[in-house]
Amino acid sequence: MLPMDPQETDPTYPATVLSAVEWSSKVIFQVSDVDVDSPNAKLREYSKAMLMRDVTWAEHLQINGSIMVRLRGPENNNLAEIIKSRTKGNWFINVPITNPELASFEHRKDATESEIEEAQQVDPWSWWNELRFATKHNARAKVVVELSDSDRPSRECVRRWLGEPIEAIIIPSSLFVLNRSNYYVLQKEWQTIVGHFISVRANIIISAKTNDKAISQYAEYAKKLISDHGDTHTLNSYENMLEIPLQPLFDNLDGDTYEIFETDPVKYKLYQEAVQQVLLDRVSEAEAKRKLTVVMVLGGGRGPLARAVLNAAEITKRKVRVYIIEKNPNAIRTLSNVVKTLWSKKDVHIFSKDMRDFSPPELADVLVSELLGSFGDNELSPECLDGALKLLKPDGVSIPCKSTSYINPIMSAVLHNNVSQLTLTVQAFHYGYVVLLKNIYHIDEPQALFEFTHPNRAAVIDNTRHKKVSFTAQMDCVLHGIGGYFDTVLYKDIILSINPLTHTQGMFSWFPMFFPTHPLTIKAGDTISIKFWRRVDAEKVWYEWQVCEPKESELHNPDGVGYNMRL
Amino acid sequence: MLPMDPQETDPTYPATVLSAVEWSSKVIFQVSDVDVDSPNAKLREYSKAMLMRDVTWAEHLQINGSIMVRLRGPENNNLAEIIKSRTKGNWFINVPITNPELASFEHRKDATESEIEEAQQVDPWSWWNELRFATKHNARAKVVVELSDSDRPSRECVRRWLGEPIEAIIIPSSLFVLNRSNYYVLQKEWQTIVGHFISVRANIIISAKTNDKAISQYAEYAKKLISDHGDTHTLNSYENMLEIPLQPLFDNLDGDTYEIFETDPVKYKLYQEAVQQVLLDRVSEAEAKRKLTVVMVLGGGRGPLARAVLNAAEITKRKVRVYIIEKNPNAIRTLSNVVKTLWSKKDVHIFSKDMRDFSPPELADVLVSELLGSFGDNELSPECLDGALKLLKPDGVSIPCKSTSYINPIMSAVLHNNVSQLTLTVQAFHYGYVVLLKNIYHIDEPQALFEFTHPNRAAVIDNTRHKKVSFTAQMDCVLHGIGGYFDTVLYKDIILSINPLTHTQGMFSWFPMFFPTHPLTIKAGDTISIKFWRRVDAEKVWYEWQVCEPKESELHNPDGVGYNMRL
Repeated sequence: MLPMDPQETDPTYPATVLSAVEWSSKVIFQVSDVDVDSPNAKLREYSKAMLMRDVTWAEHLQINGSIMVRLRGPENNNLAEIIKSRTKGNWFINVPITNPELASFEHRKDATESEIEEAQQVDPWSWWNELRFATKHNARAKVVVELSDSDRPSRECVRRWLGEPIEAIIIPSSLFVLNRSNYYVLQKEWQTIVGHFISVRANIIISAKTNDKAISQYAEYAKKLISDHGDTHTLNSYENMLEIPLQPLFDNLDGDTYEIFETDPVKYKLYQEAVQQVLLDRVSEAEAKRKLTVVMVLGGGRGPLARAVLNAAEITKRKVRVYIIEKNPNAIRTLSNVVKTLWSKKDVHIFSKDMRDFSPPELADVLVSELLGSFGDNELSPECLDGALKLLKPDGVSIPCKSTSYINPIMSAVLHNNVSQLTLTVQAFHYGYVVLLKNIYHIDEPQALFEFTHPNRAAVIDNTRHKKVSFTAQMDCVLHGIGGYFDTVLYKDIILSINPLTHTQGMFSWFPMFFPTHPLTIKAGDTISIKFWRRVDAEKVWYEWQVCEPKESELHNPDGVGYNMRL
Repeated sequence: MLPMDPQETDPTYPATVLSAVEWSSKVIFQVSDVDVDSPNAKLREYSKAMLMRDVTWAEHLQINGSIMVRLRGPENNNLAEIIKSRTKGNWFINVPITNPELASFEHRKDATESEIEEAQQVDPWSWWNELRFATKHNARAKVVVELSDSDRPSRECVRRWLGEPIEAIIIPSSLFVLNRSNYYVLQKEWQTIVGHFISVRANIIISAKTNDKAISQYAEYAKKLISDHGDTHTLNSYENMLEIPLQPLFDNLDGDTYEIFETDPVKYKLYQEAVQQVLLDRVSEAEAKRKLTVVMVLGGGRGPLARAVLNAAEITKRKVRVYIIEKNPNAIRTLSNVVKTLWSKKDVHIFSKDMRDFSPPELADVLVSELLGSFGDNELSPECLDGALKLLKPDGVSIPCKSTSYINPIMSAVLHNNVSQLTLTVQAFHYGYVVLLKNIYHIDEPQALFEFTHPNRAAVIDNTRHKKVSFTAQMDCVLHGIGGYFDTVLYKDIILSINPLTHTQGMFSWFPMFFPTHPLTIKAGDTISIKFWRRVDAEKVWYEWQVCEPKESELHNPDGVGYNMRL
């Protein structure tokens, strides 16, 4: 809705032109374009009165007002106070994607090189960033980025906005060009930029004159872009949702969790390939008929790993005996049924045990397990596999045989807000979360952190770790936390990875992790150094993390006060 | 889902017969019918182990398990402990509607009169009631009432169940009879009983043998009953929802609230009739052309009362001048627009003022207002109309001219749970709520409490009140709080009422009030005495309430610590 005329002192307006539901669901209130941070005191006070009048009117017409306000420059302290004082509804902060002054130079011949260069230094993202800090990261302030035909933003500039709470983008109608078929379209480069915003679920606002006859064409084209770029995977309800990681060693998984794991289209296929390779390497063609390979599945769940082993044996024509060890009595019910019905003629044996307490009737040639969490070792695979070492023959192998965790610094205002909300009930900044990362900006690429190999036949096993890793920021931004990933070698060159740089295509069993830190503004070129610890005591394993550059910050999760994994 | 065989020590069952979504959305787990409160220690411990096994299995298969367990008699302390210890999912407590032993007498010829009479004294509702107190009113325990063909419950017995958290009723297939067209139906009396349960949104479970060929016929018939008895008014999302009453004197109402008020199909029609009657009484046919009646609308909102006045003038052919006084500047915007466009030729004048500060250009013949809340005086109509007395001619009249509040004792476990939930954030037992009463049992009929008349020309005006009202319980039940209602005389015999005994047909502008008290078990025949106060100080008006019979209980809202109305 367009703003009221600021000159009219007592405007009349029939609220009844729309129903209350329509006001609330279909209208964004664009408030009067006044400057509540003007250096002119009279203009400033007048502007505040106008803005408050508009806000009150919006709140009268909507159950929660949705208000759009335009940033005019770097000074927004009074606006921040007004935002903080309002208790309901969202603020949509309209920010130009590049300095709007640049546009004026197009029409000015007198502009000097240095003037242009100076204008290029002005970064409207920093206007928003200062407003964000001044509102104390108010979750009701969201960003509406306005594109401009006078300047196309760099790829990195666009990627950085994806880490912000993007509500919408504004596409001016002047960005549309007629193609050869006489349809209004965006140029390739703009399509890519708009596509990036669509991928983080930004809405599209097209700004045009009311008498522009092509409005419906722009809208049709925008709908097409949305269907091209909006990914619609079945897990999208998990986007940006923080979950406390599973503790399958301590808790029993439920049927829903097993079901999700079992439907991964890639993971068990790669496990099956790894087992095939092991069987072929350990048993020659000549021995195939008589040499038995003993395979122990550690944590068999409802049977997907055992199924992969049996498939591998059938394909390679090797003889296997499978022991399935599973501690969850509820999973055992289903597993027993599978063995009774489908595998009644196979050499398969179930043991309802914790693998650490299991005394096997014979030793294994191969241990197969999927005890890895989103950060590799965070579901205690090192401790479990160390405990299972006694089950393995001296020349036996473990699938997987190695796992590595990775981290990188991340900007994500959305995840920061989600963590802040949790602080009402838990010490949320001392937890690591499993989360389908969506509204984020990778400040730098992930680097390797900790590594574990299996079997570990060291005389004294030490699963504690400590490392400091350093990164470099490409742009001014805000550090909100640390992304966590892993990859694992199942056998030889068969690898599963959720590291964004090498992610196994199509595998969805693991979402990344997110370790929150307190918001810290970073300058382009800054070094970001992060210290990470894996610590162990008699009852639990936990991580601690700390940002130590560009500024020494708080140590998170000391002594495992928040997230810890119980042994 | 039927329970597992309690004899099988390690049952196998393929969880994969249903998907996780189907398990969670389509299945209720009927647990093994064991007696965890048996006096036999061995049987008791065995029963507990079986029940916990079933519960664990249900939690494994469902995201939140839904578990149905049957009450076998009055002793349920161990069951209560198990219910309290479980942290997720709902318990559906299966309770027979009358003593199941009565059924056995039908087949026993040796039963004596006194045996039968004793069995009739047993009230399974009390089994549930004791369980409810033992679980400390756990909101996850809900009731499934099982009907029986051997005994039809009394009307009062059915009405009492409506005050419980009814999840479903079980209809045994033996209750169905073939009608003349060879369709399975319920007898009239049973239809009425089932209809009562449907009206509080109870689900229907039909218990039948799996080979009963008429199952789909029973289901079709049940669907028909649901569509006949399930009322589907547009406000049903408000059922049992507690709302803090509006404070229109202190806060400005929003557009949504005005819109809901304005769509009441009955209220403004009755206001219009009252104004017509006043105009006819004050201005004779002979005077009609020259005598002007000055009408002041106090709190004009967006114009519905003024519209009623103008309509009345047109119908009666009497001359009116209308002053509309309204303090909400947002409503004034719409009102000004209506005056400018629709009423530009009428004698209508708007004043943007609080009625208590308004100095009129002339005195009024008639004051019209709708300042009444759900409890009559709870939106401070007495104080507002006293303040407006100076606007009225000595012989002037007020519409409305009288309002009366009513109360009665109520059982409602659902409202009690909703109040208890609010205690996390406010002193919820010191508030009165506006609520569309649904799952309630009226323990006795409403009685008049406080009365106010307008205009009040007493030398010293005292709007404080105090009264004690006594009621009688028909049946054993639990007192959860006090229902509040009002009626008002607009003029002569034109009345608006939300008292359940005299409710104005079709009027939905006001929901009743609910004043919570702490749960108190009541015996049939008990006297329930309630003291109620309306208190006033310089800044606010508030109620206090106290149950003083059959047991002296806590005084609620002393000094207005919770709900109070700011002057």
